[in-house]
Amino acid sequence: MYRQLHNLLLAAVLEGQLPAGTKLPASRLLARELGIARNTVIEVYENLRAQGCVEGRHGSGTYIADLSVDHIIEVPRPVEAMPARPTISHIAPALSQRGQSLIAGAGFSRRQWGAFMPGVPDVREFPARVWTRLQNRHWRKAAPERLSYAPEGGLPALRQALAEYLRSARSVRCEPEQIIITTGIHQSIDLTTRLLADPGDSVWLENPCYWGLRSTLQSLGMVLQPLPVDAEGLDWLAAGTRPAPRFVIATPSHQYPLGMVMSLARRQALLEYCRLNGSWIIEDDYDSEFRYGTRPIASLQGLDTNELVIYIGSFSKTLFPGLRLGYLVAPPQLAGAFSKGSAELYREGQLQQQAVLADFITDGHLTAHIRRMRGLYSRRRQCLLEAVQAEFGEQFEVIGNNAGLHLVVRLPDRVDDVAVAEAALRHGVLVRPLSRYYHQSVAGQRGLLLGYACVTEAEITPAFAVLAGVLRKFVKATSA
Amino acid sequence: MYRQLHNLLLAAVLEGQLPAGTKLPASRLLARELGIARNTVIEVYENLRAQGCVEGRHGSGTYIADLSVDHIIEVPRPVEAMPARPTISHIAPALSQRGQSLIAGAGFSRRQWGAFMPGVPDVREFPARVWTRLQNRHWRKAAPERLSYAPEGGLPALRQALAEYLRSARSVRCEPEQIIITTGIHQSIDLTTRLLADPGDSVWLENPCYWGLRSTLQSLGMVLQPLPVDAEGLDWLAAGTRPAPRFVIATPSHQYPLGMVMSLARRQALLEYCRLNGSWIIEDDYDSEFRYGTRPIASLQGLDTNELVIYIGSFSKTLFPGLRLGYLVAPPQLAGAFSKGSAELYREGQLQQQAVLADFITDGHLTAHIRRMRGLYSRRRQCLLEAVQAEFGEQFEVIGNNAGLHLVVRLPDRVDDVAVAEAALRHGVLVRPLSRYYHQSVAGQRGLLLGYACVTEAEITPAFAVLAGVLRKFVKATSA
Repeated sequence: MYRQLHNLLLAAVLEGQLPAGTKLPASRLLARELGIARNTVIEVYENLRAQGCVEGRHGSGTYIADLSVDHIIEVPRPVEAMPARPTISHIAPALSQRGQSLIAGAGFSRRQWGAFMPGVPDVREFPARVWTRLQNRHWRKAAPERLSYAPEGGLPALRQALAEYLRSARSVRCEPEQIIITTGIHQSIDLTTRLLADPGDSVWLENPCYWGLRSTLQSLGMVLQPLPVDAEGLDWLAAGTRPAPRFVIATPSHQYPLGMVMSLARRQALLEYCRLNGSWIIEDDYDSEFRYGTRPIASLQGLDTNELVIYIGSFSKTLFPGLRLGYLVAPPQLAGAFSKGSAELYREGQLQQQAVLADFITDGHLTAHIRRMRGLYSRRRQCLLEAVQAEFGEQFEVIGNNAGLHLVVRLPDRVDDVAVAEAALRHGVLVRPLSRYYHQSVAGQRGLLLGYACVTEAEITPAFAVLAGVLRKFVKATSA
Repeated sequence: MYRQLHNLLLAAVLEGQLPAGTKLPASRLLARELGIARNTVIEVYENLRAQGCVEGRHGSGTYIADLSVDHIIEVPRPVEAMPARPTISHIAPALSQRGQSLIAGAGFSRRQWGAFMPGVPDVREFPARVWTRLQNRHWRKAAPERLSYAPEGGLPALRQALAEYLRSARSVRCEPEQIIITTGIHQSIDLTTRLLADPGDSVWLENPCYWGLRSTLQSLGMVLQPLPVDAEGLDWLAAGTRPAPRFVIATPSHQYPLGMVMSLARRQALLEYCRLNGSWIIEDDYDSEFRYGTRPIASLQGLDTNELVIYIGSFSKTLFPGLRLGYLVAPPQLAGAFSKGSAELYREGQLQQQAVLADFITDGHLTAHIRRMRGLYSRRRQCLLEAVQAEFGEQFEVIGNNAGLHLVVRLPDRVDDVAVAEAALRHGVLVRPLSRYYHQSVAGQRGLLLGYACVTEAEITPAFAVLAGVLRKFVKATSA
């Protein structure tokens, strides 16, 4: 009743049926007339009064206020008028330049599960029962502070647990104060860029690289300088005599998406170059826990004696992507600025979840889960390699299979990998085309990224057979 | 053992004790000499090989690779050299311009709980048991998709539940497709700004306003044009003949932090002005569910027939801040761009939590909780008003107490509200100084923001007595 009467009166005022100065009936009268409670009428009048829609006080009567726009706008009218209702032609200019390029260059994938989605761990294997138990423990005694905003940098217990984990598992040199909890790689890059770079500053990055990097950096006004990748990782010498960048972003332990390791010589040289030129290095260590055949490669950050490296990582590959928990290790001198900047920009919370994760790490579940998954993924990887071998022999080169959650099947330049991926999707198989990971100004290598982590061994062979069928058609068509 | 040997060898190589070309002992020999398993030595050699630290193959011997930097850097050396280790003097220039102003202007508060922290709901009253029950239900049968990244715009069930809630509770005109789930106001502003504005574009905003707005907008390169607030809300006519902005941000239902409602006449005029000038309106509807004495004021978005309003809100005030769940209602024409942009920029997840919240809303718990809290906060507000009255009578004006979670005690211009807040904190009472909410270029009004939502009635009177003692000293000192 309240809402009906309110909306009715409001519409009548806005449409001019009740012009300014009109006296509204007394609440008692209107209530009797409509057969509703007088209190409802009073509530509606009060609400309209609060909005400045009616004037006058109880007793002396309630009058419609003057709402005419001409009465209000005394400022000069604008020069260019827009049509009464923006038409579809207004959409493109409605978006900003950066908005347009963000949408046009969007690289995210709508489907996130199934053979052979790259970069996705097997979340079915996540120990949900352990997690729920820890979760319930923290919810039973939720202190008010745990339900409020996060302190700068995140929950101290999680920063502590992470510092220990990163020191031992990734040879990262760090104290808990250097650790900033984020919602993942995107936020870590966003924070670092806003704190360390201004619009127009340049950044060196690997080509190919993760699409999310480009989107995040571009919409913060950075000038991207994609550099090639060779057998030793980012070939930053290819920059030649260009001025040193504000920062370099690289994946030294496991190049994304091609999979090579940056050699120690190149790591040392990069550190030295950045020291001499005052450039920062962002080390994206996104999945190096999963290495097959040899132990994980130690982080670049651990070699840095000059505090030039910002190390970033997340739990998206080790636990599950939807967790949205990542971390950043800031150089000691910048730790204060990074933790303040994070609190100011993002107003983080999720302390209950951070507490659960801290327990999960401290109780040894993280290490155990990674160990178990490494074995599982290693078998699946082997199974996929065998399927490729069985279908194609040595016809295509397979690269990047020593670590991580995916491998790359290289294709001849004449084969359109985007078209292959689209055709495969129509047959229910997800793959991502390698060429899409290259900067738009550079003709990328062709190939397919195949994730094997979220596919059981039983599923791998039949799914690859479907893909092989699709692929053969394309290869045949282009060689004819 | 593995790590010790690895680090020992690596250090010897990096420090030059093992120069390039040195032949390492055979794994069998070294293992015997050190009394460790041969496999450990092989693993270390393999890992060093993967890093390019040693060369040579099994059988023909393992040699230290040439890691000298001079061997690597063939590019011209940089002109300006930095000291070997960046000193403290490098910190300031280490941060970018935007980074420096972000840190210098940081407005977030370290403490988030206690009398009289403004803007914080009573999270002790949150129905944690209901929440945990729903949470366990979803974790028992977690589909893989629920642990992965979120689909564009968020979980469909939550978008549906929210659309219904916003239509009925806030008179928002929306379909589920227009709703974008975010992590809160900060992310909603961030997304809107990146999509709709480029660096250098201007934005009109209320002065005073929420500090987080300024920080987010500034670090995205926006030019802030603070405009005064009067009894009818944002006085945008004060902009005079300035060019129309890219967008206007306002809190029409409950000005933050002063508390007034934007009048219907001004709403209508603002909508008309923006339509004519092609400006967007961002409506920040942060806490208008809590209104005392009259029903909540309907949203500005609901009056908009031209699809110019981006409506944003969050659950930080209605449920708890640490939840980090907010929403944005995009105009129909922009809904696709906003949902894509959100997926591309933030790679959201947290679908389990979104599913829990969807159930929480659908099962009626949100509405019930808001209703209960409105009664509770109303009594606490009354109690605080009485405490102010008892201590000071009519000495200070109290404003903004008709809605929300805080009120403002106005102070004379001669009283330094920042100093009062600092002194109060030393006595264990949290208040925030009103002047800090003003743009730095404008001398702000003086006053104290007092939150009453997270304080029980029993705590209010003694805590206010402490504050009154502090305040009296300052008032006395300045009037002497």
